[in-house]
Amino acid sequence: MQFHQNGFRPGDPRVEDASPLAAPHTEAVPAEVDVLIVGCGPAGLTLAAQLAAFPDIRTCIVEQKDGPLQLGQADGIACRTMEMFEAFGFAGRVLEEACWINEVTFWKPDAREPAKVVRHGRVQDTEDGLSEFPHVVLNQARVHDFYLERMRHSPSRLEPHYGRRLVDVKIDDAVMVRLEHAGREETVRARYVVGCDGARSAVRKSIGRHLVGDSANQAWGVMDLLAVTDFPDIRYKSAVQSAEGNLLVIPREGGYLVRLYVEMDKLGEEERVADRGITVEHLIAKARRILHPYTLEVKEVPWWSVYEIGQRICDKYDDVPAGEARQPRVFIAGDACHTHSPKAGQGMNFSMQDTFNLGWKLAAVLRGQAAPALLDTYSAERQVVAQQLIDFDREWAKMFSERDVDPKEFQRYFEQHGRFTAGVGTHYRPSLVTGEATHQQLATGFVIGTRFHSAPVVRITDAKPVQLGHAGKADGRWRLYAFAGQDAASLHGLCRFLAESSDSPVRKYTPAGQDVDAIFDLRAIFQQDHRELAIEAMPALLLPRKGRHGLHDYEKVFAPDSKNGADIFDLRGVDRKQGALVVVRPDQYVAHVLPLAAQRELAAFFAGFMLPA
Amino acid sequence: MQFHQNGFRPGDPRVEDASPLAAPHTEAVPAEVDVLIVGCGPAGLTLAAQLAAFPDIRTCIVEQKDGPLQLGQADGIACRTMEMFEAFGFAGRVLEEACWINEVTFWKPDAREPAKVVRHGRVQDTEDGLSEFPHVVLNQARVHDFYLERMRHSPSRLEPHYGRRLVDVKIDDAVMVRLEHAGREETVRARYVVGCDGARSAVRKSIGRHLVGDSANQAWGVMDLLAVTDFPDIRYKSAVQSAEGNLLVIPREGGYLVRLYVEMDKLGEEERVADRGITVEHLIAKARRILHPYTLEVKEVPWWSVYEIGQRICDKYDDVPAGEARQPRVFIAGDACHTHSPKAGQGMNFSMQDTFNLGWKLAAVLRGQAAPALLDTYSAERQVVAQQLIDFDREWAKMFSERDVDPKEFQRYFEQHGRFTAGVGTHYRPSLVTGEATHQQLATGFVIGTRFHSAPVVRITDAKPVQLGHAGKADGRWRLYAFAGQDAASLHGLCRFLAESSDSPVRKYTPAGQDVDAIFDLRAIFQQDHRELAIEAMPALLLPRKGRHGLHDYEKVFAPDSKNGADIFDLRGVDRKQGALVVVRPDQYVAHVLPLAAQRELAAFFAGFMLPA
Repeated sequence: MQFHQNGFRPGDPRVEDASPLAAPHTEAVPAEVDVLIVGCGPAGLTLAAQLAAFPDIRTCIVEQKDGPLQLGQADGIACRTMEMFEAFGFAGRVLEEACWINEVTFWKPDAREPAKVVRHGRVQDTEDGLSEFPHVVLNQARVHDFYLERMRHSPSRLEPHYGRRLVDVKIDDAVMVRLEHAGREETVRARYVVGCDGARSAVRKSIGRHLVGDSANQAWGVMDLLAVTDFPDIRYKSAVQSAEGNLLVIPREGGYLVRLYVEMDKLGEEERVADRGITVEHLIAKARRILHPYTLEVKEVPWWSVYEIGQRICDKYDDVPAGEARQPRVFIAGDACHTHSPKAGQGMNFSMQDTFNLGWKLAAVLRGQAAPALLDTYSAERQVVAQQLIDFDREWAKMFSERDVDPKEFQRYFEQHGRFTAGVGTHYRPSLVTGEATHQQLATGFVIGTRFHSAPVVRITDAKPVQLGHAGKADGRWRLYAFAGQDAASLHGLCRFLAESSDSPVRKYTPAGQDVDAIFDLRAIFQQDHRELAIEAMPALLLPRKGRHGLHDYEKVFAPDSKNGADIFDLRGVDRKQGALVVVRPDQYVAHVLPLAAQRELAAFFAGFMLPA
Repeated sequence: MQFHQNGFRPGDPRVEDASPLAAPHTEAVPAEVDVLIVGCGPAGLTLAAQLAAFPDIRTCIVEQKDGPLQLGQADGIACRTMEMFEAFGFAGRVLEEACWINEVTFWKPDAREPAKVVRHGRVQDTEDGLSEFPHVVLNQARVHDFYLERMRHSPSRLEPHYGRRLVDVKIDDAVMVRLEHAGREETVRARYVVGCDGARSAVRKSIGRHLVGDSANQAWGVMDLLAVTDFPDIRYKSAVQSAEGNLLVIPREGGYLVRLYVEMDKLGEEERVADRGITVEHLIAKARRILHPYTLEVKEVPWWSVYEIGQRICDKYDDVPAGEARQPRVFIAGDACHTHSPKAGQGMNFSMQDTFNLGWKLAAVLRGQAAPALLDTYSAERQVVAQQLIDFDREWAKMFSERDVDPKEFQRYFEQHGRFTAGVGTHYRPSLVTGEATHQQLATGFVIGTRFHSAPVVRITDAKPVQLGHAGKADGRWRLYAFAGQDAASLHGLCRFLAESSDSPVRKYTPAGQDVDAIFDLRAIFQQDHRELAIEAMPALLLPRKGRHGLHDYEKVFAPDSKNGADIFDLRGVDRKQGALVVVRPDQYVAHVLPLAAQRELAAFFAGFMLPA
């Protein structure tokens, strides 16, 4: 955490100075904004928290409900989501408050007494080294709280406008949105509108798009319980297959709360779950039958719901029909464009990744750093990976509901798909912002199109052990991770190019008067022990002077963390002879892997979508 | 973090429910309290945060200044202090915000060019395994903030009363304290008064005690800087010995701020540093000369001060003259009873440990759990260890100021005293609350009288890797860590004794209607892998039912953390054949090590100071 750069300031450093550009929060929504976000769910709040970092962008977020969420809904937080939370600065608090999912246990009917369930397997939840973060579980309402705090403490001091129902959206030279609030109508003129308004999205309807897919005709119940049970794995994520149906145990934060997903009735072809009149008593009774011979004495049900499994997806996530060349101005994200079975624990996680993908692109276009064509990549990237998730999800849900799945098969499937469930399976195809794999062999563990996989390093200026990936904050900046080769010459050459050449992206795209790392945050990783590296010998670009005092930033140069045996060059397959330049997008995805000397390719990559400052 | 035990509650779980017993904060100080704390420094706030956990105790804390501290003063946070912060629930936030001291570098005059300093050594700051926490540096004002937040979020909703000057203290049947506030007088009647009012303590004067010691007649300057320098170790703790004098570099939180301690003038016998008229310009000029050939361009000086080194201590920390048998009612803590050179980084840390020692004792006596004789142990324990610190401190400061100390000797001394500097050198002698070392060989790494040294374990109910010591929260409870022997029989026997025997401390001292672990928090550590341990086979005391719903507490049983190679039995020398019972005080110090079967000794230990419920 870096602070005091522009002068000492007492108090909590997470509370940033309010920008003079920040418009004070008013009772009424503003008449004109750059971005209007519809919906204060995980997708909407991720986008709002991202845009709040830029007070020069006028953002407004509206929500139909009258205030923040208190309980219920999603709870699973994938490793990948934790990595993103780290970028927003609240991963540490989530780690402390959440329930960690460390192992998963599997239960099936006892072979001799099929009316009883017995444990037949146990696996580690997340494979070692998949992420520096665990898979955790926390009330969605708390995730909202952390985002809201981030927004409140940002230079924009952004606050949602609650109690707003979307009336309609009209696309003209701007996007005109009518809202209804307390019986009165409000109109907002926006350059961009993002619908994060859930599966029944009014924004989606306004652009004539539909969720398409199928229902498995299977009703499920979900309930959060405070209960007394002798089921021994009540604090493990447990998949219970019984003669009476299936059940999933999700232990919850605080050590006492538990969530049960309970398989209820098969539905008819056209039947809706609401028609069944399922009550919480039905859920509890079914859970008891499934968990037999174990007891379940329910003391409190803070929240419960019934739903039918359905995997549905929208074919495009913006207002531009396929094949048309104009730029999109309305986007949809999260449940508005894809819905899943809750049991893969993917809905909330995937939704947040949607808008983490969109946020930096909108910011770059609105701030004049990138051409509007960048916005086309949002739907192109996110729709494809959602389709992959839907396919996985469908298979997983089916397997979960079927009577005759071999438990071993079930467990194998579960293990195979660990990467998907952890949220690190997303792989973007080459595009404007994702390069071709021409030089992938220089860093085989930083796969182009996947998220930058952090590894431990040591900062040479103070010997602090840190995670390299945690340099990647949600600040809209690009990261250039330069891994030194056998000799330091090519890395020095890269620094010279970046600092001095007229082709240098740093020189072309960094606005005058801003810090040299305002757009491109260069970090170097050497192969020697940190004690063998002298900060005096580093190029100026790696010890840049910043802020109004021109103070040195000492956090740019790293060495391998030899103490813990994990050398980042080995862990991530970086070519020790040639080194590598790993270009990472503001949403933490690897955009490119290049030789350190590939100045032309580097310049060409950014010239593809960035605009000179 | 455990919550929702008495029912689901939305929002931040760190904000506890306000107790109906909590008196609302009023403009005026209350007329009658159980404990009046004088002074809102680290010592006072540690005590206030501890007592705030008990809303049945009426606590008031007053401070002469008009509001919370903003900057300056102490900044070093020892490993041991981090362990205590963990007990108060804010270690994680300090870790994120603070500067970590990872290595220390040593500089001396260049042999060929003595006017230039050169680096001649570098050591790791804290030896591996000394604590699960690093040594960090953070503005004292932020430490205050975290305590104030803890108090505000406690069941007592405790807030300080600022702007109160102590007029006098009179001891009658109660302690009568007169305060002056905005020109008016207020009187508080208190059962106990604790003076945490600094080196010029008015409370200390009121009980006729004095700080005794000497001054080294050496002026030092300290300044917090935002500066540009080419001194390469500006982000390391660096001890610079030069021909021009000595200097200590302490890098600070946020990545830019740095503190320099600068050796200034030798003072005459009766001379005070204030007489010298030393300005910040003098400090900067001296620092420049010492750091030659490196440059120092100062951009901002948020805080600076000059002081003379002095080690002084009070012979007793309460109002009872040595040899008299009555119970103490006025205590002093922190700088009020001992002052040090700031460079050992001990003043603030030691002060907080004073009141962490006193807090649980006051609470136990006021809540009727322990006899008032317990309070005698405060001065007896803390005065002795402060004297040890003073002795160390004097030697260290002298070495730091002397011209002719062999740098190798200096570095060796530094390394040897690492444990002291880390705050883990404190060793209480046998007393009412610290047992004899009769059975120490059963757990050689949990030394009776020293702080409980945490180690990694795995919780068997959910396979979560945790630090065993983090079970020890600042809640006034005793911890009983039962390490199983070769077979589980003796551990089961202990549980039976604790649950059933009329001699059981659990049965004797736990008030009716309270949770079974309200006074004694029993935890068991087995030798097997967690997958080999069945929660079903555990004694009920290890799976207790608690709160208004009678929910199981699943966080009592642990297995070694085999994954990280560190087995707690080996790390802490626990006898694998016999096992051991490690009794830990509410302030995290090991009170006793006993055989699991030593029921009589266990009962006798607690009978020595506890009162039946």
